[in-house]
Amino acid sequence: MSGDLTIVGLGPGPEDWVTPAASQAVADADVLLGYTPYLERLIPKPGQIFEASDNREEMVRSARALALARDGQRVVLVSGGDPGVFAMAAAVFETIEANPDSARGIGVRVEPGVTAMLAAAARIGAPLGHDFCAISLSDNLKPWATIEARLRLAAEADFVLALYNPASKARPEQIGEAFRILSAVRSPKTTVIFARAVGRKDESIEITTLEAAPLALCDMRTLVIVGSSATRTVTCGDGRTWVYTPRSVRVE
Amino acid sequence: MSGDLTIVGLGPGPEDWVTPAASQAVADADVLLGYTPYLERLIPKPGQIFEASDNREEMVRSARALALARDGQRVVLVSGGDPGVFAMAAAVFETIEANPDSARGIGVRVEPGVTAMLAAAARIGAPLGHDFCAISLSDNLKPWATIEARLRLAAEADFVLALYNPASKARPEQIGEAFRILSAVRSPKTTVIFARAVGRKDESIEITTLEAAPLALCDMRTLVIVGSSATRTVTCGDGRTWVYTPRSVRVE
Repeated sequence: MSGDLTIVGLGPGPEDWVTPAASQAVADADVLLGYTPYLERLIPKPGQIFEASDNREEMVRSARALALARDGQRVVLVSGGDPGVFAMAAAVFETIEANPDSARGIGVRVEPGVTAMLAAAARIGAPLGHDFCAISLSDNLKPWATIEARLRLAAEADFVLALYNPASKARPEQIGEAFRILSAVRSPKTTVIFARAVGRKDESIEITTLEAAPLALCDMRTLVIVGSSATRTVTCGDGRTWVYTPRSVRVE
Repeated sequence: MSGDLTIVGLGPGPEDWVTPAASQAVADADVLLGYTPYLERLIPKPGQIFEASDNREEMVRSARALALARDGQRVVLVSGGDPGVFAMAAAVFETIEANPDSARGIGVRVEPGVTAMLAAAARIGAPLGHDFCAISLSDNLKPWATIEARLRLAAEADFVLALYNPASKARPEQIGEAFRILSAVRSPKTTVIFARAVGRKDESIEITTLEAAPLALCDMRTLVIVGSSATRTVTCGDGRTWVYTPRSVRVE
């Protein structure tokens, strides 16, 4: 008997942002695999096996998950956020493409989740209220020149930009380079949001601008949103300041 | 005593894609407002008031929701998908900006949800596995020239594109115009997904290409995903064909 593999997104952190469909898949699993911090968010049920692994081991983890499913296990591979956005689902299909036999007879399913940009946006208003793009600034898997070109074209298109993986210990300077590219096209006063650890106890969200952004505060737990030319702030009745992008584009 | 306003995303359809946080906000509400088809997905609790309204009445609905909250009610404004993506959250902040007094003393909160592109992507694999953008093709609120420019630049940037509101009865031809613009830059063989009514009983998802896409099938319930040059199909062990975009960009 063959098993199945479900690739699940646990959202950015809080349990009440995990969809019931994802929770059900987790509850039904025989074996769960994932990056250690994501598995640590779950409590194993009696008999469940947890296999944690490191962040850079996506292909090994995918192959292992497929092998366990071929052995007849109900396997769940967990991601943070949504599994289809800079996460595990693509790694599984890459593994299957490289070795189609690895998925022979297995049922495969992807369960969507709340990706970081949606959670960050909700916390601060509606900055993604109009046309936007999502770019990973990690150059582990693509040339920096590709990232540069995309940033420049996205700025010209006047998209709101959600920047994933904006910095790491190995490359703290990339967010600064990205902001220099955007500043060549966009106003230095463009609204910028630094959303760190959204949904966690140490969550912090800062509204700043392209010219004043505290780049040194940016790390792998930060999601950066750069507004379009229409993105603006508004202060609400309770004194809180929100950021939103209007649904309409005004003709000059 | 002042009330509060929570803007909630119910996801694309199925109850098990609604976050527990959104369900809790709905359960706690005195009054719920929204576009009729979204409210019809909920069952009123004793004492709850439902106020349904038409699709084009976002600003009136926002003002009404704020007024009810100022009267001391716990108010929930429901969207499909995520409330911050081409939906109600931006309309509320537009209303507050136009009349800051409308939100005086009110607590405001946004609850994220699973937006249509994430659900459509999960059903068919991981087409949003790498850099992507989301564009609404509706020109009710922005000039068509802005949409054209964004499509062209997004194609040049080699983003995967998620196209919201790709067609309506009033403008059935816009998806065809969009595909002509994209085809000037992208290969006619580019993978395209037509995802209709995702999560509903009449869900249908078709994998096609830029040159062969059945444009006439596109309507307001369709979410269109246009692949990047790297987006590809892979056939899984169970015979199903999936679409994914690899996490890495190969250097030619």
